[in-house]
Amino acid sequence: MIVRIMSRLDAVLAAVADPTRRAIVDRLARGPARVTDIAGPLPMSLAAVSKHIRVLESAGLVRRSRQGREHRLRLHAAPLRAVAAWTHRYERYWTQRLERLEAFFADRRKS
Amino acid sequence: MIVRIMSRLDAVLAAVADPTRRAIVDRLARGPARVTDIAGPLPMSLAAVSKHIRVLESAGLVRRSRQGREHRLRLHAAPLRAVAAWTHRYERYWTQRLERLEAFFADRRKS
Repeated sequence: MIVRIMSRLDAVLAAVADPTRRAIVDRLARGPARVTDIAGPLPMSLAAVSKHIRVLESAGLVRRSRQGREHRLRLHAAPLRAVAAWTHRYERYWTQRLERLEAFFADRRKS
Repeated sequence: MIVRIMSRLDAVLAAVADPTRRAIVDRLARGPARVTDIAGPLPMSLAAVSKHIRVLESAGLVRRSRQGREHRLRLHAAPLRAVAAWTHRYERYWTQRLERLEAFFADRRKS
């Protein structure tokens, strides 16, 4: 079970490591869309956009449904929860660092 | 500036998309370590581990210092903050989904 969760986390992180795929996630957060709607503003071929969408589908971040000949895509944000949970484990490490910085400047103000 | 932040985010996400690199981040969260300390429990060559460490260094997640002939590594968790911030933007999408599920089961209990 842990192995399965970890490999899903690998796929989700790798999927969103690409700025085009993050732009697609962002677009779908505003509502469902067709592949052509998504491809419109992107500076690349429809084939390249389709490939990015397939990576997001494999990672479980995008769901596809058919309405006649049209494919509609919608965001499935749930897998991002695992990413948030993973980063949350390290939150105190960057917070500690900020606290040390604050303490440093507080000391300087006193002296 | 935004371009720079985005490309750093790409590198951080790609770096932690690998389970070995997440294991290294996890090890360094428990305190600084030498490359050999990190390599010890990992089922791969020292060269392979060094390569993973270099990816983490390039992403700004690991800092290296020299003490004589020894290289000491420590976690620099700050770049993970950008990952947390990015996932945070989608938090309401998975929360909404949970709320819809709760509403669904609440309705079923009523009927």
